[in-house]
Amino acid sequence: MQYALPDVLTQPLVQSALREDLGRRGDITSEAVIDSKQTTQLHIVAREAGILCGIDLARLAFHNMDSQIAFSAHLKDGDTLHAGDIIASVQGNARAILSAERTALNFLTHLSGISTTTHEIQQCFAHTAARLTCTRKTIPGLRDIQKYAVRVGGGRNHRMGLDDAILIKDNHIALAGGDIALTIQRAKAYAGHLIPIEVEVDTLEQLERVLNEGVSLVLLDNMNLDQLKTAVAMCQGRAKTEASGGITPETAAAIAETGVDFLALGYVTHSARYLDIGLDYL
Amino acid sequence: MQYALPDVLTQPLVQSALREDLGRRGDITSEAVIDSKQTTQLHIVAREAGILCGIDLARLAFHNMDSQIAFSAHLKDGDTLHAGDIIASVQGNARAILSAERTALNFLTHLSGISTTTHEIQQCFAHTAARLTCTRKTIPGLRDIQKYAVRVGGGRNHRMGLDDAILIKDNHIALAGGDIALTIQRAKAYAGHLIPIEVEVDTLEQLERVLNEGVSLVLLDNMNLDQLKTAVAMCQGRAKTEASGGITPETAAAIAETGVDFLALGYVTHSARYLDIGLDYL
Amino acid sequence: MQYALPDVLTQPLVQSALREDLGRRGDITSEAVIDSKQTTQLHIVAREAGILCGIDLARLAFHNMDSQIAFSAHLKDGDTLHAGDIIASVQGNARAILSAERTALNFLTHLSGISTTTHEIQQCFAHTAARLTCTRKTIPGLRDIQKYAVRVGGGRNHRMGLDDAILIKDNHIALAGGDIALTIQRAKAYAGHLIPIEVEVDTLEQLERVLNEGVSLVLLDNMNLDQLKTAVAMCQGRAKTEASGGITPETAAAIAETGVDFLALGYVTHSARYLDIGLDYL
Amino acid sequence: MQYALPDVLTQPLVQSALREDLGRRGDITSEAVIDSKQTTQLHIVAREAGILCGIDLARLAFHNMDSQIAFSAHLKDGDTLHAGDIIASVQGNARAILSAERTALNFLTHLSGISTTTHEIQQCFAHTAARLTCTRKTIPGLRDIQKYAVRVGGGRNHRMGLDDAILIKDNHIALAGGDIALTIQRAKAYAGHLIPIEVEVDTLEQLERVLNEGVSLVLLDNMNLDQLKTAVAMCQGRAKTEASGGITPETAAAIAETGVDFLALGYVTHSARYLDIGLDYL
Amino acid sequence: MQYALPDVLTQPLVQSALREDLGRRGDITSEAVIDSKQTTQLHIVAREAGILCGIDLARLAFHNMDSQIAFSAHLKDGDTLHAGDIIASVQGNARAILSAERTALNFLTHLSGISTTTHEIQQCFAHTAARLTCTRKTIPGLRDIQKYAVRVGGGRNHRMGLDDAILIKDNHIALAGGDIALTIQRAKAYAGHLIPIEVEVDTLEQLERVLNEGVSLVLLDNMNLDQLKTAVAMCQGRAKTEASGGITPETAAAIAETGVDFLALGYVTHSARYLDIGLDYL
Amino acid sequence: MQYALPDVLTQPLVQSALREDLGRRGDITSEAVIDSKQTTQLHIVAREAGILCGIDLARLAFHNMDSQIAFSAHLKDGDTLHAGDIIASVQGNARAILSAERTALNFLTHLSGISTTTHEIQQCFAHTAARLTCTRKTIPGLRDIQKYAVRVGGGRNHRMGLDDAILIKDNHIALAGGDIALTIQRAKAYAGHLIPIEVEVDTLEQLERVLNEGVSLVLLDNMNLDQLKTAVAMCQGRAKTEASGGITPETAAAIAETGVDFLALGYVTHSARYLDIGLDYL
Repeated sequence: MQYALPDVLTQPLVQSALREDLGRRGDITSEAVIDSKQTTQLHIVAREAGILCGIDLARLAFHNMDSQIAFSAHLKDGDTLHAGDIIASVQGNARAILSAERTALNFLTHLSGISTTTHEIQQCFAHTAARLTCTRKTIPGLRDIQKYAVRVGGGRNHRMGLDDAILIKDNHIALAGGDIALTIQRAKAYAGHLIPIEVEVDTLEQLERVLNEGVSLVLLDNMNLDQLKTAVAMCQGRAKTEASGGITPETAAAIAETGVDFLALGYVTHSARYLDIGLDYL
Repeated sequence: MQYALPDVLTQPLVQSALREDLGRRGDITSEAVIDSKQTTQLHIVAREAGILCGIDLARLAFHNMDSQIAFSAHLKDGDTLHAGDIIASVQGNARAILSAERTALNFLTHLSGISTTTHEIQQCFAHTAARLTCTRKTIPGLRDIQKYAVRVGGGRNHRMGLDDAILIKDNHIALAGGDIALTIQRAKAYAGHLIPIEVEVDTLEQLERVLNEGVSLVLLDNMNLDQLKTAVAMCQGRAKTEASGGITPETAAAIAETGVDFLALGYVTHSARYLDIGLDYL
Repeated sequence: MQYALPDVLTQPLVQSALREDLGRRGDITSEAVIDSKQTTQLHIVAREAGILCGIDLARLAFHNMDSQIAFSAHLKDGDTLHAGDIIASVQGNARAILSAERTALNFLTHLSGISTTTHEIQQCFAHTAARLTCTRKTIPGLRDIQKYAVRVGGGRNHRMGLDDAILIKDNHIALAGGDIALTIQRAKAYAGHLIPIEVEVDTLEQLERVLNEGVSLVLLDNMNLDQLKTAVAMCQGRAKTEASGGITPETAAAIAETGVDFLALGYVTHSARYLDIGLDYL
Repeated sequence: MQYALPDVLTQPLVQSALREDLGRRGDITSEAVIDSKQTTQLHIVAREAGILCGIDLARLAFHNMDSQIAFSAHLKDGDTLHAGDIIASVQGNARAILSAERTALNFLTHLSGISTTTHEIQQCFAHTAARLTCTRKTIPGLRDIQKYAVRVGGGRNHRMGLDDAILIKDNHIALAGGDIALTIQRAKAYAGHLIPIEVEVDTLEQLERVLNEGVSLVLLDNMNLDQLKTAVAMCQGRAKTEASGGITPETAAAIAETGVDFLALGYVTHSARYLDIGLDYL
Repeated sequence: MQYALPDVLTQPLVQSALREDLGRRGDITSEAVIDSKQTTQLHIVAREAGILCGIDLARLAFHNMDSQIAFSAHLKDGDTLHAGDIIASVQGNARAILSAERTALNFLTHLSGISTTTHEIQQCFAHTAARLTCTRKTIPGLRDIQKYAVRVGGGRNHRMGLDDAILIKDNHIALAGGDIALTIQRAKAYAGHLIPIEVEVDTLEQLERVLNEGVSLVLLDNMNLDQLKTAVAMCQGRAKTEASGGITPETAAAIAETGVDFLALGYVTHSARYLDIGLDYL
Repeated sequence: MQYALPDVLTQPLVQSALREDLGRRGDITSEAVIDSKQTTQLHIVAREAGILCGIDLARLAFHNMDSQIAFSAHLKDGDTLHAGDIIASVQGNARAILSAERTALNFLTHLSGISTTTHEIQQCFAHTAARLTCTRKTIPGLRDIQKYAVRVGGGRNHRMGLDDAILIKDNHIALAGGDIALTIQRAKAYAGHLIPIEVEVDTLEQLERVLNEGVSLVLLDNMNLDQLKTAVAMCQGRAKTEASGGITPETAAAIAETGVDFLALGYVTHSARYLDIGLDYL
């Protein structure tokens, strides 16, 4: 199955990004030195290896600038990139192509950076059954496309926002009066049949109490490897397990080997690498 | 002088970020388990050292959620952070504070990450007169606040967009017919008295031709250290120099020591680190 | 004459509605199970009798999702529908068609419900010269398309908003000092030549005073049938008459038979029925 | 627990609704006849019994018109209304209060209509364990507040949009190739740990095949009472059951008595009644 | 009666104007040279005589910049200005006041220019009963506030847009088939009871035919003074008359003296003078 | 080189302008009297001489109304117009063409008025080397297109906003403590390499002090001709000079003859004339 975000969702982001770059006068360098009728062909080229993401946003960037530009994608989101791969070719008015270049590349390099990082980290623990999930630690305004990039890179999305799942943390329990069982019961009464409930625990004692309430998903926060192994054993057949807390590419494999079902990493969205992609003549 | 971006410019970003997180139902975890009248006090705390940036956006996040929340900032943008420093305190409705937490922190951690990285890299070449400048390789939609964070970190902004300065690159010269002198003359005729003109050069031969046209700012792209030194000597008294091309924290010092006036780094905006900041009970 | 609202006015409503349904990830069911290249043809079919309204908004829903979808309308706004009538056919990408389905149908079923109700109520008093008009009791944000649906159903629009006609009610007279004649004189001085003035009256005594001021349109509020008949007689040749106040399909005919020129019903917009229309294979 | 939607989510709806009513000149009747300094006090009063919903939107309507208006709510969302109950009092500038009146009432009457209808229908089958859920058949642009009104009325929300749960229907299976088991397997592979999956079935044969795939929620579409009873028995201990298909207040009780867990009604949002609420002097 | 446009209508215009001026970094001159805590008091002063308009938009400009600025209006819209009159005083943060200065003044000088011009032209024919009306020849995006300024200056508004009155011109008649009577009959059938109908005529022959159809308002386009006098006589007791076509301050009095009821001038909105108003220390 | 503003920047202005004119029902005159299938051809014709500006916005107005309209431009922005010149031809649906007519013309007449005025004033001093520049005294919301029209007319843009250049005025110096040298030094420290600095001076004494600080651009405010000549002499080889302060078409030539480099006129944007352009049958 091919992933994609509908253009109607991403169009406002692309238009805002173009307007942010064009400012009040547009691309004055091109206007100053290039003839308004000049045409050209340029190519979007990978300058390093990775996983492609954002091809539809790049297309929209060029087409919002000039609907007459011919944009031919040679690869699609999720495809593996090698340095030198031609991702797409653009043919049309020279001023318009140069004006949209940076906007198109800013989407591609950021989103492909996320997909690539996601993929690389998952590869570290490909010998386990664990899956990477992302968090709500995203760049403001870009959550939906960042989470899309995580999916393209092979990761899973955790909550999209505050409203699509219940995740009970320490602060909630404290502010609810301090009784973990009562807090979970309130959540169950509220949630109904389509809202998942997850509870964060810091200790094995908390975990036991949570499991006794019949919760099907637990977040094991900042546990060491031994604690994680014990927690996984305790949850066997009772709940899915998700490890979280400062997980990095370096620590991911050992954590996955404890048997947890999921590893939650803010890292892939809040510290996404940039994947080098350029617009070149061939 | 204290830097700040006017609220009227950042308010739309903060509201979009809040709505992105609140989704269609708001913070259902808090709604499910915390009483609607419950109040609390929490503190925004630095968990590692760095340079603070984004305090006004954090304030707006809480106040857009509930104008009754008391937000007391103890530090301001540009201040040095040590692990454990209390940045601000928030007091008010518990549901509202938890609902705005992640949005406030996503701004603070991203922008402080940029300010901190900017500051750290500048420190690498503090023994030279060179200054760091950022580029147009920014996260789509966040350019103005990312460039603000660069200023807060002590860096300079290069172009804000395609419209506030002319920067002639290879592609422009090629599409203008290939004659570098003619291209620069067109740019000068177009620019008038308030638009700066900069020309990118890859070789010393190009540089000589550009200097002969009387350009006051040149971008020395992907030159090695020897070339940079020669270029700086050639420009002495004729033009300011800016080095660019994949500069990283590791290579910055040696480049600065060549005598260039500016180092242009996409790195500080496209690969900004995350600075760990949290919302805690004390 | 064929009625229509310009696309430039309705486009924002359709895009908002699509985005509301697509949320943060788009149509995940279609993405999960249907191949991205799969095409299909489906038909918009009336499941009960009525008056069609909203065909242009349905078209926009599909075209905003995918401009390559072929949308063929077989009927137009204002046409009579019988159960089983094929309203339009859509052919194209299967995922895109299913993704836009509910948005298209939500517009069609709501607006056709209004047109149908408007038509049905008008039919109740088709033996009189009276005409149905709608009010400002509309669903927030949908007034322009709801009032359009009333026109399509054969009704008249009363005020589109607070700004296009003066309608003096009890509260205005009280707050203006209590003198009905003075209040009307102020309104006339203010209104100029293109703003209609209407005065609401509850009693025949009020009506006499209003008519003496030379008002050309009176709203007879919550009068019984006898009062209405007397009022109509008093207004003969002096003012047009409009009955209002909780009029329902059941009471409309008797009221129309009193000779009033208009019957104002909030009912057709605030309690519009849903007309059953679906998207089917044939 | 008290339900509420954050103002930051509803503010744009209220402002749009006010602007829609104020048009290009504002409230010309008030401007023409009432002195600009005149103040008054009016009361929002229930004119029939029901369940209140929308008090925060009413408050926003008055405060967007004039932040100096004192708005005192005497009741809160979810409270039972009797004819004559004073819901809130507004005190301040007379022109401003009259200008916001209709917008405030349009929200209150529509949302309270939904809450009241939801509550009434649930009462019909209060002797069973079944719960009412709403659907995606909502008024375009108002889904989030309509679904909120359903919750306030005691109902459950089904999907908020196409993106927060998978619901496999006939069309999906057909377009996926016709194999129900394969379709469900694709959905499971796609969904991950936080996205619920539901499958719609029309016949008991389909149901058996779906249950064999291990689905935890089934939608029983357009089944008669006997079929529903058999289906419920088949699902016992294997899946939750949801009945759908043209359920009305009249048919709800009998359906609930078959033992289904949920009754899905488009009726409560697409054909919501209007609850009569007015702004009066006392 | 005091005129005013509700803030909720003008707020978006003021915020757009501020953002347009503040750009991507805000007021860099103030930020560079004035301390962030510096306060000051400045005064909005008329530098020439005229009619004030736009005081509420000026207030919003300062308050959107900084809600702590104290804005004291000494005069109100419609008041007569003499050179040197203090219109308002602003006290608060110095950077914020200077940042909002130009936006506030751009609204005041433009709108007061319109009010003043409107008033001046009306004075030219104050010895007649004629009234000035404006047209749809307005600056794009500013129609509502330009038409407000016309009212403040003592003029009348003609149509606010294409939708609030019918105005039949030559082109309409030609495209409707050429039969003026039939065209008017269509318009009457369409218009209902709240939409005014006006017909434009170029000749006295056309006028006779229009009057025979029973139209209550005629636009006498580009007629000379003799024709206007005859036309006015023909309309006596049958229709109101409006003269149009390149009317300027110089020609207005003679035209008014022909006895027409209204003079329609695009001039007051499309060629509005600027009224000199500044922000000064006293 | 051909000037143009990208459609992606102007599209929102055109759509707002169209919606402002179409209101809540669209063009009711056309809808009432012209058949929905009727087609026609009309021509945009210059009714007086000038410089064309805004052709792309006119095209967008028609295409936003109906993308099927054929819009053929015979002239382009910057071309000289003579009375009677056909600027463009539009062919298509008659209702749609008439509905977009006024919006298209309002852009064309306003922007061509600015280009024409700019050109005319420049012609007054074409025998000098001086150039006209515009200011920030623009119509709120239209700055970018007004400044574009100035460029099309042959003028230069001064600052686009508060953020792209530093302009130190009296108030800044006073609020910075009163020391002109210190104020300029602060500005230089802040500005970096891409932000121009200009200082406004009222007297020759101030000028001397400013020149001593090494500023490359000075604004000579409200100086008489003798002062200007002296100032120009003082600045020779040290700074560019710009005259400002109530310059009008009448006074421009004499000022230009003093030898200043630039004449700054708010006049061309705040008091732009209207250039008469219409939509006609030929």
